[in-house]
Amino acid sequence: MKSNIFKLIIAFFIFVGTASAQKQPKYIFFMIGDGMGLAQVHSAELYQASLDNKNTFYPTVFSQFPYATFATSHSLSHGVTDSGAGGTALAVGHKTKNGVIAMDSAGVKPYKSIAYLAKEKGMKVGITTSVSIDHATPASFYATQPDRDMYYEIGQDIIKSNFDFFAGSGFLKPNTNAKKEEVAPLFPQLEKAGYKLVYGLDEYNKAKSSAQKLILMNKKGTDPVSLKYAIDQKPGDLNLAEITSAAIESLSKGDQGFFLMVEGGKIDWACHANDGATSIQEVLDFNRSVEKAYEFYKKHPEETLIIVTADHETGGMAVGNGSSTLRLKNLQNQKVSQEQLTVLINEFRSKNENASWDQLKNFLGEHLGLWKSIKISEDDEEDLQEAYHKSFVEHKNETSKSMYAVNDKIAALAVKAVNKASSMSFASSNHSAAYIPVFAIGVGAEQFHKKMDNTDIPKTVSTIAGWQLP
Amino acid sequence: MKSNIFKLIIAFFIFVGTASAQKQPKYIFFMIGDGMGLAQVHSAELYQASLDNKNTFYPTVFSQFPYATFATSHSLSHGVTDSGAGGTALAVGHKTKNGVIAMDSAGVKPYKSIAYLAKEKGMKVGITTSVSIDHATPASFYATQPDRDMYYEIGQDIIKSNFDFFAGSGFLKPNTNAKKEEVAPLFPQLEKAGYKLVYGLDEYNKAKSSAQKLILMNKKGTDPVSLKYAIDQKPGDLNLAEITSAAIESLSKGDQGFFLMVEGGKIDWACHANDGATSIQEVLDFNRSVEKAYEFYKKHPEETLIIVTADHETGGMAVGNGSSTLRLKNLQNQKVSQEQLTVLINEFRSKNENASWDQLKNFLGEHLGLWKSIKISEDDEEDLQEAYHKSFVEHKNETSKSMYAVNDKIAALAVKAVNKASSMSFASSNHSAAYIPVFAIGVGAEQFHKKMDNTDIPKTVSTIAGWQLP
Repeated sequence: MKSNIFKLIIAFFIFVGTASAQKQPKYIFFMIGDGMGLAQVHSAELYQASLDNKNTFYPTVFSQFPYATFATSHSLSHGVTDSGAGGTALAVGHKTKNGVIAMDSAGVKPYKSIAYLAKEKGMKVGITTSVSIDHATPASFYATQPDRDMYYEIGQDIIKSNFDFFAGSGFLKPNTNAKKEEVAPLFPQLEKAGYKLVYGLDEYNKAKSSAQKLILMNKKGTDPVSLKYAIDQKPGDLNLAEITSAAIESLSKGDQGFFLMVEGGKIDWACHANDGATSIQEVLDFNRSVEKAYEFYKKHPEETLIIVTADHETGGMAVGNGSSTLRLKNLQNQKVSQEQLTVLINEFRSKNENASWDQLKNFLGEHLGLWKSIKISEDDEEDLQEAYHKSFVEHKNETSKSMYAVNDKIAALAVKAVNKASSMSFASSNHSAAYIPVFAIGVGAEQFHKKMDNTDIPKTVSTIAGWQLP
Repeated sequence: MKSNIFKLIIAFFIFVGTASAQKQPKYIFFMIGDGMGLAQVHSAELYQASLDNKNTFYPTVFSQFPYATFATSHSLSHGVTDSGAGGTALAVGHKTKNGVIAMDSAGVKPYKSIAYLAKEKGMKVGITTSVSIDHATPASFYATQPDRDMYYEIGQDIIKSNFDFFAGSGFLKPNTNAKKEEVAPLFPQLEKAGYKLVYGLDEYNKAKSSAQKLILMNKKGTDPVSLKYAIDQKPGDLNLAEITSAAIESLSKGDQGFFLMVEGGKIDWACHANDGATSIQEVLDFNRSVEKAYEFYKKHPEETLIIVTADHETGGMAVGNGSSTLRLKNLQNQKVSQEQLTVLINEFRSKNENASWDQLKNFLGEHLGLWKSIKISEDDEEDLQEAYHKSFVEHKNETSKSMYAVNDKIAALAVKAVNKASSMSFASSNHSAAYIPVFAIGVGAEQFHKKMDNTDIPKTVSTIAGWQLP
């Protein structure tokens, strides 16, 4: 009998524990690495350890979360999703056609995102990214448009959302609508709707105490298309971790709880360009923003849920391209992105119109380590020499076009050579069908334990939060 | 007060539930897809749906298990493991040097596998595979040898193990030791140790009631190196699902509980050869053996644990090689493995020494669908035409060597063309560093919920089973 009472007392504490575990999160971080497949995460972790000559890995903060699984990401129209349908699935829990933002495939019926559900429950909402605020992934959380390229209309949906905080590099088409007409500028409309537009962290810091609703963009004079690649950033350049910190600070005001979406948008861009070293630095940059969320979690472990996932994999990245010895360490010699290398090659070419092959080799060695620190394969050297001849002897420049960049062919071939010497390869310059990773920590994280579909992720968040996703 | 009593009653039932969930499994299935990365699983699931023109997936039984996560697989010596160190990690929970079987890197200190722990606790133990019984993965569970190529010595370790059931295609070196000396044949030693050696299912069925310890091999006259690829199997050929059923039947005798390791060994071989269609059929074949385990689980859900995992990924497989539309359905036209195609090309060549290009095209169309049902790229056609010229005009045969096969170059190029037209690509013909999948169902399965290392898998099984892994 005594033992039974003892059991009941233990059971009571288990019950209390269970009941408190069913609490709803007051703070939700929904963090998306665009194009961040499992290989993108793994390569970054392996690379970090390789710098210490270890053939193990230094984990990102999120890969250590207590729940980790993976998900399918096909869209309604295609086996391989784009960021429109992928973002939509993550935001609203419905599949749609590639290219659509939070609507059905016909572009008729709008869907409601979990960000709206959070807002309806009285939480503050923040939507942030390292690319433009009107890009497909962030858009899926606040806009409903039949086409991801309707940037102006997407931007206007900010007003409808009434969300509290937006941040990113800027806007792509603040003055031109989908019909390519010059129309009423977006920014005054946003201001009229109560948004304080600030450019860079200094302006943010001045405005933050008084502004109710904020849109943080990169400093005036910088590229509105995206933040610089992490590998190209200099001190003072706005980065995603700073944006995340500003978002947390801003959304914490008033203690209403919050839903914060953070996108690391350029992992995808780097992988479209098959730029391995740049992808790794983007993942590590994204990880630094997850670290900000994790620091917050540690202060509010009983009230916070963090989800880290991706919309799709980009490039069909593989780590290990023949040898059992990984040579990721070679990537440390690449000092700039392929995109920035294109800029530098153009500069180099304008100063050295008839540069010798050795001069170009020296230039590439300086920026990528080729020949200097990295052994280049014969095939790759031949390809580069051919491109050199076209460009510096015949003076016919060639380019390599991918989703977000038109890079110099020499830059593309040189980065390809660095990848190959660094045990990395890509299947294509487009998205793949690979599973996406799902990591979770905090209130309700234990719901993320089995293979899911991308649409299950917001559905599960809704269930945990006690919302009704339509 | 009433409500408190009510809470206590509920709590009691939760407590009873919790206590019963902490039960130890009586039956453990440890199932390993050799070379089965996440892409190998996914491609098989996508392919099945593609046959119905769907751009979704038809799940394998194991990808629906309630717990799914992934694990790192690097070895102590290399970023990319081989099947020796990979099998060792899964069997004994320690990392070692590539090539070693269940010993430390120096090949001095032997490690004890979880199969031995099961045996010590009075459970029956079965070790089964679709390749030879002395191959690295099965070996890691019963043998301890400094080199995976010591097939004779590995075979002898069966005697030391005293395990109850072994099955596979046969043995690679039953009469020749590691020093390449002809030595005392292995089979009489096994028989002396109490093992009944049976060849094929008919012999198994005759022997099963009387034999205490059994070694099931493929029928006499068949290849001892491995079972046929699933894509090449004909009715009556021994397959892995039959082996699994025989193992379950045999190990169930006496009701002692059991530990059964099942390896789908040729997913790896297909991917070494970069043979996409064959890999998919191997995964589906492996899945049929998991179905046998799952049927058993359904009869004993409170006493069974099934783990499905892999030792490493092979080939750096990607699904999606440019287009957002997947064309996996094209793979249905490939009727034979690349290996079998090599046999057929050799036959074709001996009958048609000076075959025309059109004759060869017709031959490849028949077996792979090229030209007939699958559009071939210009590049691939050029490569094939060149290989045709070398072989049928110049009469200089070329081969394509991978880990487990020396295939005709025409066969390799033709399969490569099928892959490309089917949205599949490979980064290399070797293993990659990709994460391995981990799926679990049954008693203790909830322990598999976060990213792990491959060594954590047997450690976790041991914890669940209440064993002490040294």
